[in-house]
Amino acid sequence: MKTHSLQTQSLQTQALQKTGTLYGVGVGPGDPELLTMKAWRLIRQAPVVSYLCNDSGESQARQIAAVVLSEAEPGAFELPLPMPMSRDRTAANAAYDEGAARIAEQLRQGHDVVFLCEGDPLFFGSFAYLLDRLQDQFPCEVVPGISSVNAAASALCSPLTLLTESFVVVSGRHTDEQIIQALQTHQSVVIMKAGQARARILALLEHTSRIGEARYLEYIGRDNQRIVEDVRRLSAEAGPYFSLFVVLPARVSRP
Amino acid sequence: MKTHSLQTQSLQTQALQKTGTLYGVGVGPGDPELLTMKAWRLIRQAPVVSYLCNDSGESQARQIAAVVLSEAEPGAFELPLPMPMSRDRTAANAAYDEGAARIAEQLRQGHDVVFLCEGDPLFFGSFAYLLDRLQDQFPCEVVPGISSVNAAASALCSPLTLLTESFVVVSGRHTDEQIIQALQTHQSVVIMKAGQARARILALLEHTSRIGEARYLEYIGRDNQRIVEDVRRLSAEAGPYFSLFVVLPARVSRP
Repeated sequence: MKTHSLQTQSLQTQALQKTGTLYGVGVGPGDPELLTMKAWRLIRQAPVVSYLCNDSGESQARQIAAVVLSEAEPGAFELPLPMPMSRDRTAANAAYDEGAARIAEQLRQGHDVVFLCEGDPLFFGSFAYLLDRLQDQFPCEVVPGISSVNAAASALCSPLTLLTESFVVVSGRHTDEQIIQALQTHQSVVIMKAGQARARILALLEHTSRIGEARYLEYIGRDNQRIVEDVRRLSAEAGPYFSLFVVLPARVSRP
Repeated sequence: MKTHSLQTQSLQTQALQKTGTLYGVGVGPGDPELLTMKAWRLIRQAPVVSYLCNDSGESQARQIAAVVLSEAEPGAFELPLPMPMSRDRTAANAAYDEGAARIAEQLRQGHDVVFLCEGDPLFFGSFAYLLDRLQDQFPCEVVPGISSVNAAASALCSPLTLLTESFVVVSGRHTDEQIIQALQTHQSVVIMKAGQARARILALLEHTSRIGEARYLEYIGRDNQRIVEDVRRLSAEAGPYFSLFVVLPARVSRP
């Protein structure tokens, strides 16, 4: 009985050894130096590196990790997964299904797959949709990355939150009521994905009298980084996808 | 007039060149491989590395960065700043005053100072109190680090938040009303610094019927990491300072 159990275990181990591991790896907000040592090592060693790309094959995550990919092992290859940029859920779901199938094919062949994610893989990221489709069948591991929230605080050189403050993250996809509630309840508020919603967010900041505490950032840590300290000077037009507002209370930092 | 202006500028530049820069550097939650490349480089090159320590000279941040410090330049030295572990604000303020003065002394001599911070320097960190005392007089730069929030999500392999969800961070220092409000209003909730407040947090999770969605983590990424999937099995006694609860909604991750 014991022998049988050990044999079964051994066969299972062999089967597991034949399956690759999926690594969701955060590459941070834009500066390649903000990759972690672990991300750097995994990307360099990976037999397969995958990422989402647009119709033209462009990928922000790949671009951030380009310098590491230039050091990849001979024989390593890339697996770009095209993702339609529309908000059509059916099309997006089909693209994730297709992407997960292509990753699964590699994992079944015993190849580890490193999937590159901007910022942190599990913080407003697309990796969640691949993980959801693959984590029941394959070993998965996640390497956290610097999120744009922490990068924004560093770029502003301002504490995001102190011990007795609360901190909330909402996105431009939330309703007016949700954003107002966040601004009225919490000292520190970050509003992510502010691009399309910029005009609406400016109006809500004005409405809650927090516009004077708000700052705006886009493309943090990249060559085209832009910080607007007085958001009243910001035009009410749509901005890039990688833009956010940081709303911090006036304070004296004493413990 | 122009010559005079250029001369003034040149003198100012010389004065600036004589002053060191203060770098607040995040070392992440515990695993040295979660340091960023930038943190690694700055620590290795720093003439002075500073950090908070307890009465016995122990420092969590230094311990995380120990492997990098072993590669430090010859002549580099460490500047540990003792910090009383009490909640006495007067004692803490005096310790930060003293610490800032000792860092300022180095900066005035033209030495760059790298100050090590667990997690991210500007997210519930002590670095804010030093920055507040020094940033008007000296050039300061912050290097973001992996926060325990992102590390927790990775350890759990669970998305912290998806695009249409909101996410709030509160701490064990918040009132019952604030924690209840966070649990009732937001899908994803992280409760930091849960050590002393563990029994109270468990009662509030029960009260808001979110105890089944909560998970508990301590010492993330360290050898003594502990994850409790069913927090109802957690004893209602005080836990370590580095412990947190992550409360995530049941969901199917479809975009």
